Amino acid sequence: MKLCRYGEQGAEKVGIVDPQGVLRDVSSVMRNLTPRDLARDSLENLASMPVDGFPIVPGNPRLGVPWEGMSKFICIGLNYSDHAKEAKMAIPAEPIIFLKAPSALCGPNDDTIQPPHSSQLDWEVELGIVIGRTARYVSKEQALDYVAGYCVVNDISERAFQLQCSQWDKGKGCDTFGPVGPWLVTADEIADPGNLDMWLDVDGIRRQTGNTRTMIFDVPSLVSYCSQYMTLLPGDLISTGTPPGVGMGMNPPQWLKPGNIVTLGIDGLGRQRQLIVGCENDF
Amino acid sequence: MKLCRYGEQGAEKVGIVDPQGVLRDVSSVMRNLTPRDLARDSLENLASMPVDGFPIVPGNPRLGVPWEGMSKFICIGLNYSDHAKEAKMAIPAEPIIFLKAPSALCGPNDDTIQPPHSSQLDWEVELGIVIGRTARYVSKEQALDYVAGYCVVNDISERAFQLQCSQWDKGKGCDTFGPVGPWLVTADEIADPGNLDMWLDVDGIRRQTGNTRTMIFDVPSLVSYCSQYMTLLPGDLISTGTPPGVGMGMNPPQWLKPGNIVTLGIDGLGRQRQLIVGCENDF
Repeated sequence: MKLCRYGEQGAEKVGIVDPQGVLRDVSSVMRNLTPRDLARDSLENLASMPVDGFPIVPGNPRLGVPWEGMSKFICIGLNYSDHAKEAKMAIPAEPIIFLKAPSALCGPNDDTIQPPHSSQLDWEVELGIVIGRTARYVSKEQALDYVAGYCVVNDISERAFQLQCSQWDKGKGCDTFGPVGPWLVTADEIADPGNLDMWLDVDGIRRQTGNTRTMIFDVPSLVSYCSQYMTLLPGDLISTGTPPGVGMGMNPPQWLKPGNIVTLGIDGLGRQRQLIVGCENDF
Repeated sequence: MKLCRYGEQGAEKVGIVDPQGVLRDVSSVMRNLTPRDLARDSLENLASMPVDGFPIVPGNPRLGVPWEGMSKFICIGLNYSDHAKEAKMAIPAEPIIFLKAPSALCGPNDDTIQPPHSSQLDWEVELGIVIGRTARYVSKEQALDYVAGYCVVNDISERAFQLQCSQWDKGKGCDTFGPVGPWLVTADEIADPGNLDMWLDVDGIRRQTGNTRTMIFDVPSLVSYCSQYMTLLPGDLISTGTPPGVGMGMNPPQWLKPGNIVTLGIDGLGRQRQLIVGCENDF
């Protein structure tokens, strides 16, 4: 299933995209999509219902984050060998874990707000892993049993903030730096998360092209590894790192500016589109 | 007011500690202590009620995290010049922001679980700032208007995890690494958050002695600074760094082991006590 939440921010309803690509309203049977709804039983129950029995959603509504109640937004740094090279950083011996502030979350097509003191705004298309049940010290072999599904993530980064000190979180957690979606695609629809093409364009020019097969640490390894350090809860998100082609790696580096449009996508997981805007805050 | 949540995990009720130090049950007027309850109006309303009208809580119940629904657990690294020195790290030019996983949160006296692969478990007494209303691009001068209160935090750290790669979050976010409390002490009770004595003992031996006056970046500076990078929401916590005396700084370094008891406190904010235990997980 391709699950989403549509409507204005804070008033989203749950939708499903049918095999013909039509958005249908499932709010009659699922009031919201929360961590509890990511349990296998709950998803199988929804999947057992005839999708064409749900009403078609008219128009082209805004999409929110596909599920609500995420407690942890985990990111993996430098997980593609070619990206580590372009970032001029060593290939990591173990996965590099950092955290993105949940206040950075936004819908897949929401505007990206450039902070007023930002000068190095950058993009990162990433595969997101959505945890479906509590995972603690799970093995690689068991890891996929804990995954509810997958999604597209743009791990938007402000490189001057990120690299001002040793810790990256400051440059990763600004508001709107975490577009997620359009959908949470349940794991049964993704035959091999280790072989998904991914891409990102800025103003229609291809900047990132990659495939999850060139990850240094694959999906089962990452779920297992993270679960050795912190309990993964239903609804937690692990964003798995980005392939080459970020602005920081260009010569000279290229940064996003208000007016730019970023589009990105991953095979089977849909696409995002963000307009970069300035900060309207009066301060 | 000294506010807390008492009772078994997941079933806590809201309590208040009266001027005589007696715990009273305020659940008749406050069902839970959530971010919404941290608004000034809500706290003033509670403060206006005669405290001796609330029933005394018998016995000595477990305490939970004093409030529920924290979205961000922000930490500031190396914010005491003497601690930066003992950690052999440079005094930072700007506050170092990192994030602690919310799954690390626990009550102030809950056991600290040493992960099975942990070898360098360490302690850090810290002053916690509790945000009371949404803060975005606030100035230092305005910053205290956004603070609901203060609390004791033990920023428990696993140094081998923390320093295995460049990013610290992995060694900061393990389950039970974030004891908070015993109380959320409302800001009106703390005349000067920049002049609070703090201490930490391991098995009754004093290890940390400090005062918030030796912070490199003070409370208003930290609230203002963090709000330049991410919107601070009611219930968010900023833990402000630790004074000297951590195990990593000793010669030779000293690490916590199962059976150790850590006690810590800050003037006016109460004290915590943790027993270090091994991991019971069967994996």
